[in-house]
Amino acid sequence: MGNSVKQLAVLGSTGSIGRQTLEVVRALPHKFHIIGLAGGKNIDLLAEQIKEFKPRFVYCQDREAGSHLVNAECEFLSLEDIARQPQVDTVVMATSGSSGLRPTLAAAKAGKNVALANKESLVMAGEIIINEAKLNAAQILPIDSEHSAIWQCLRGETQPAAQLILTASGGPFCHYSPDQLNGVTTEQALKHPSWQMGRKVTIDSATLMNKGLEVIEAHWLFNMSFDSIKVLIHPQSIIHSMVEFIDGSIKAQLSYPDMRLPIQYALTYPERLPNPQFPKLDWGIINNLSFEQPDFDTFPCLKLAIEAGRKGGTYPAVVCAADEVAVELFLWQRIKFIDIANLVGQALEQHQAIAHPSLEEIMAADAWARQRVLKLASGDSSC
Amino acid sequence: MGNSVKQLAVLGSTGSIGRQTLEVVRALPHKFHIIGLAGGKNIDLLAEQIKEFKPRFVYCQDREAGSHLVNAECEFLSLEDIARQPQVDTVVMATSGSSGLRPTLAAAKAGKNVALANKESLVMAGEIIINEAKLNAAQILPIDSEHSAIWQCLRGETQPAAQLILTASGGPFCHYSPDQLNGVTTEQALKHPSWQMGRKVTIDSATLMNKGLEVIEAHWLFNMSFDSIKVLIHPQSIIHSMVEFIDGSIKAQLSYPDMRLPIQYALTYPERLPNPQFPKLDWGIINNLSFEQPDFDTFPCLKLAIEAGRKGGTYPAVVCAADEVAVELFLWQRIKFIDIANLVGQALEQHQAIAHPSLEEIMAADAWARQRVLKLASGDSSC
Repeated sequence: MGNSVKQLAVLGSTGSIGRQTLEVVRALPHKFHIIGLAGGKNIDLLAEQIKEFKPRFVYCQDREAGSHLVNAECEFLSLEDIARQPQVDTVVMATSGSSGLRPTLAAAKAGKNVALANKESLVMAGEIIINEAKLNAAQILPIDSEHSAIWQCLRGETQPAAQLILTASGGPFCHYSPDQLNGVTTEQALKHPSWQMGRKVTIDSATLMNKGLEVIEAHWLFNMSFDSIKVLIHPQSIIHSMVEFIDGSIKAQLSYPDMRLPIQYALTYPERLPNPQFPKLDWGIINNLSFEQPDFDTFPCLKLAIEAGRKGGTYPAVVCAADEVAVELFLWQRIKFIDIANLVGQALEQHQAIAHPSLEEIMAADAWARQRVLKLASGDSSC
Repeated sequence: MGNSVKQLAVLGSTGSIGRQTLEVVRALPHKFHIIGLAGGKNIDLLAEQIKEFKPRFVYCQDREAGSHLVNAECEFLSLEDIARQPQVDTVVMATSGSSGLRPTLAAAKAGKNVALANKESLVMAGEIIINEAKLNAAQILPIDSEHSAIWQCLRGETQPAAQLILTASGGPFCHYSPDQLNGVTTEQALKHPSWQMGRKVTIDSATLMNKGLEVIEAHWLFNMSFDSIKVLIHPQSIIHSMVEFIDGSIKAQLSYPDMRLPIQYALTYPERLPNPQFPKLDWGIINNLSFEQPDFDTFPCLKLAIEAGRKGGTYPAVVCAADEVAVELFLWQRIKFIDIANLVGQALEQHQAIAHPSLEEIMAADAWARQRVLKLASGDSSC
């Protein structure tokens, strides 16, 4: 295994996780070959990546622009078709938002290793994806730092965990009062204290929605009940999460906040490889790690997401979709920061949920929630 | 494996680790049977333990008193003979000091599981014990909380660690100046801030000698170079140690300081079992974990032990024996606290070391060091 070259398809290669994935590939050129690249709106960057990595399969959102990218050596395919190509060993799901759902499912059905950074797909359709992965012997390898930490702590353990403890930086507004939150700007919300991430996930970190979605993701990835998943605020973002075992022993995984480490771990697993680009923790500098309980009242998105996860059915899809639209509206400065939670909460209240939904029912709930939030934001609160 | 009853011989059953081992056995009566008990000077407690656990093999230091303890159902044997009895599955080495060396070696030669709390045996004769354990397929299962933490963090990892980080509470005199240390009393030194332990190891924690010996122990247990073992002061004693892997990822093991957890882990390994007596970490209370670099100048024992470990040969045996006598002298109030390091340092300087020593050469170095410290303490500094 150590000597074979893994064929990677990176879906979402121009985003934050995609770019960092390619950094890992550059650092370990003997380990990986890029066979597929799919980018979003940044056509120039995608063109550069294609020039550098010479993938066989290419996709971009803008089909017109995409047609200029393909050449005699590469083929334009849909995300799902790239994910299921027989030559692909590992699909890196680095797209953001619900667009990752269908390609993740395609990869699971094709029995691929799925290095998953797109949490929305598991949140929206965890039951379907996990079942397909089991049926087709696909491995879901988490890339989120928290889930990678839990996965690393569970390594070699033969019994189920007693509790997962997901750490959260608390975001830039950790000790803000409701009044202070009322006045925060998009600029303030986009400044995360410890992580460099994409815009959507940065806002989700500020509302703690991100942590709520991660709780749902952990529920599916590690087959743990919601009662056994706790959230703990840890502002330094050094401990990325912890696992408590049935004897009360706890294991934690630590590193500086750098997404390339969990990305590489997922790609090289079960091997670990040195990477000189990764900063080593310096215990001459780190003299304090602090912890506090999350404030569910000031950050209602956390509660909304966990409650939606507990209820299950189409509720988590509604949280995802409603949040995606609400965050967009906030980034466009159309709504206030605190309105993100208000809009998601209203959408959830008005939703007629379906238990154990099909993919079509999930996508219908997603579409409904998007419309609903747009209507609610424009002042129309009728169901 | 989960259903078989393990036959335990507890050597040092009346000491701190021995008593806590029996607490674990009481909590999990379906898992263990006590087949051997060996106590020190506390004959009354040993008699009670014999009455409760009805072992087949018994030993106590005072042979005369021991003859009153045996009855028709149990036999008086030496520590080594108990360790090598064919019916014994696991030997818990809970004696303190160098008296643990020969029975540990006997257990290793007999291919037993050796749940090892007696660090002196590995410090004095690590090379011999580890080689015998390999030859005879004996498993050395660490009970020291630091080494148990490392062992738990290494679980399931298939590649060597890059670095071990042994945490240390720093003891009761963590930020004392040399002047302050000069005046500390035995009462002050016997008050450890976070651990309840025997008297010898409590003093060793105050001088940091204990941590130095643990570095040597870790070197042998985990086959790590001294350059790859670091010591980090962590006053709360919640993180019991950490392992850094070659990709820079670090795993840590956490719990309240309670020796019963590492004892139970060693006894039930690879299984983990719930034990309602163990306190669970309460993250509503723990809000801060702090770290600092050790002060090698103020606590010279730490440096002396690690240097002796690096030099190898009979030096580590001299550190152990010299320290054992020096601590006794301090407990009898015959020398000052700071004289412990002075005496150990002088004994090391005067020692004519032997590389790759035999057991006899190690025991000779041990005897020499004991005599030397007594002489030095009485004012005789001639070699």
